[in-house]
Amino acid sequence: MTVGPHRADPAAPAPTVVTLAGGVGAARLLTGLIRAHPATEQLAVVNTADDTVLHGLHISPDLDTVVYTLAGAINPDTGWGLAGESWQAMDALDRYGGITWFRLGDRDLATHLYRTHRLGEGADLAEVTAEIAAAWGLELTVLPVTNDRIATMVTTADEGEIGFQDYFVRRRHDVPTSAVRVAGIESARPTPGLLEAVAGARIVVIAPSNPIVSIGPVLAVPGVRDALAARREAVVAVSPIVGGAALKGPADRLLRELGHECSVVGVARLYREVAGTLVIDRADAQLFDEVEATGVSCVVADTIMTDVDAATALARVVLGGSAGGGSS
Amino acid sequence: MTVGPHRADPAAPAPTVVTLAGGVGAARLLTGLIRAHPATEQLAVVNTADDTVLHGLHISPDLDTVVYTLAGAINPDTGWGLAGESWQAMDALDRYGGITWFRLGDRDLATHLYRTHRLGEGADLAEVTAEIAAAWGLELTVLPVTNDRIATMVTTADEGEIGFQDYFVRRRHDVPTSAVRVAGIESARPTPGLLEAVAGARIVVIAPSNPIVSIGPVLAVPGVRDALAARREAVVAVSPIVGGAALKGPADRLLRELGHECSVVGVARLYREVAGTLVIDRADAQLFDEVEATGVSCVVADTIMTDVDAATALARVVLGGSAGGGSS
Repeated sequence: MTVGPHRADPAAPAPTVVTLAGGVGAARLLTGLIRAHPATEQLAVVNTADDTVLHGLHISPDLDTVVYTLAGAINPDTGWGLAGESWQAMDALDRYGGITWFRLGDRDLATHLYRTHRLGEGADLAEVTAEIAAAWGLELTVLPVTNDRIATMVTTADEGEIGFQDYFVRRRHDVPTSAVRVAGIESARPTPGLLEAVAGARIVVIAPSNPIVSIGPVLAVPGVRDALAARREAVVAVSPIVGGAALKGPADRLLRELGHECSVVGVARLYREVAGTLVIDRADAQLFDEVEATGVSCVVADTIMTDVDAATALARVVLGGSAGGGSS
Repeated sequence: MTVGPHRADPAAPAPTVVTLAGGVGAARLLTGLIRAHPATEQLAVVNTADDTVLHGLHISPDLDTVVYTLAGAINPDTGWGLAGESWQAMDALDRYGGITWFRLGDRDLATHLYRTHRLGEGADLAEVTAEIAAAWGLELTVLPVTNDRIATMVTTADEGEIGFQDYFVRRRHDVPTSAVRVAGIESARPTPGLLEAVAGARIVVIAPSNPIVSIGPVLAVPGVRDALAARREAVVAVSPIVGGAALKGPADRLLRELGHECSVVGVARLYREVAGTLVIDRADAQLFDEVEATGVSCVVADTIMTDVDAATALARVVLGGSAGGGSS
């Protein structure tokens, strides 16, 4: 078992690349980043606002998607859960009329059992995450953005405010929304070492994750937005919007419903205070000038990560794209 | 799905047979009792002092053994867990170095997920147990002895006081003990309906379960011992000790280590204030007079439940054995 450096370890080298991450899109970019740059010098700061407690188990969907993906164990068809999973527990839960819309595979359950047990013992989420990542042999450090409990809440037209997984999984994000807030965010503290890592990194990447419900909560943890703003010229964001649409998930719909422009220009406006550079897809090349007009340097590249090679190529663009450089 | 009568239902008939139960031995006798007498008229009062919280999940081993056995779903080789079980979650938990000595099969996990979820919603253990029993089609009512949290603690020579599952499963009850206590017992309240059921039953059965750690906690819930004592002539116990040994588990060793005589006579002395009759095995027939000398009527029968027919025959003896009758 390879144990990755944990931020709590004073002997661990300071990461040169820090990536703010949600789930699937971030995990794919990270598979490229660890091929383009030594994994041991990298830190992924992962959203925990879509964590949920279900059946008494602490579930951290974005952390697990990042770890499973980097371990090569993710289910490639769904982008979540483990490949080759079995579903005996969920099938048996049906007998009781239990909650089965949030699918927990039998092997995946072990991750939640372990996390819940360790948290119950008094470990914090960063420690448990480091243990889980180490068990999967990851060399990159995976850090939850906070050890405190934060929770994205979505206001829907028909059910009022509901939890994120209720919105995202049970309702399949197929419902009108009018507001998003992150419960607990005011008192959440950034995970120890996180702000220092941002301050010391050569480059900070904002992964192509949902700006509202993935990157939004990460930036909203007190101190994180300011830490990025102080390093704005070293921060490179990758647009999750391509051709006016999200490749996956509800980013496009949420942007529109919450009053943002659903385009790379809208993304640039959302990030302009914290990111000096935005990488957009070639499909949006005609918006280069509009992006730059927001005060953000624009880089045009192939951003659709169809495979690891595509992710690695994008990662190389990202790693070379800081400090105000930009070209198509 | 057949829904069994729940004690909270005022329309449910009062049970005519109430059985105090631990795990495996009780479950076997109950398979006979529901063949010898209508299941809808029966109530099993089950020990919960060996319940444990593991990985954040509320596990009720005796309740599950009773339900799975009566549903015909028990693993016949082990006497616990489900037949034909798979172990993906436990295998995956090994990756993390998690706790796997308490084996939770994938389908069995669903029971604990459901129970934990419902308790988290505010349901009490009796409600959840009724739901689980109904889902398995049980017609007999299964009642935890208390909705409050009680926990058997065992004082061992080498580790001091440890939890029951630590003693029973992890240490395989292969360790000297000097004391047993039930944490929380002073403030535990009998489950609503339980004392009334004992008062109104035609016969109360004490199953051949461990007198110290299975029946002991049931009787120790405030009010239960007195309720049985008031019905002493209607109470029939079946000895879990045959030929000076326990058929399964540590009853014999615990009895000796805690200063009791490990024989049917010792069992009679333990129960004489609450049971008017003790059923002993033919192997112990020579102790008939000694049992009766304790003030308990003695019935000699075949008590080893090798199959359902044997359990049914024993159940018929038990059901006919109250009111001071006794013969070999």
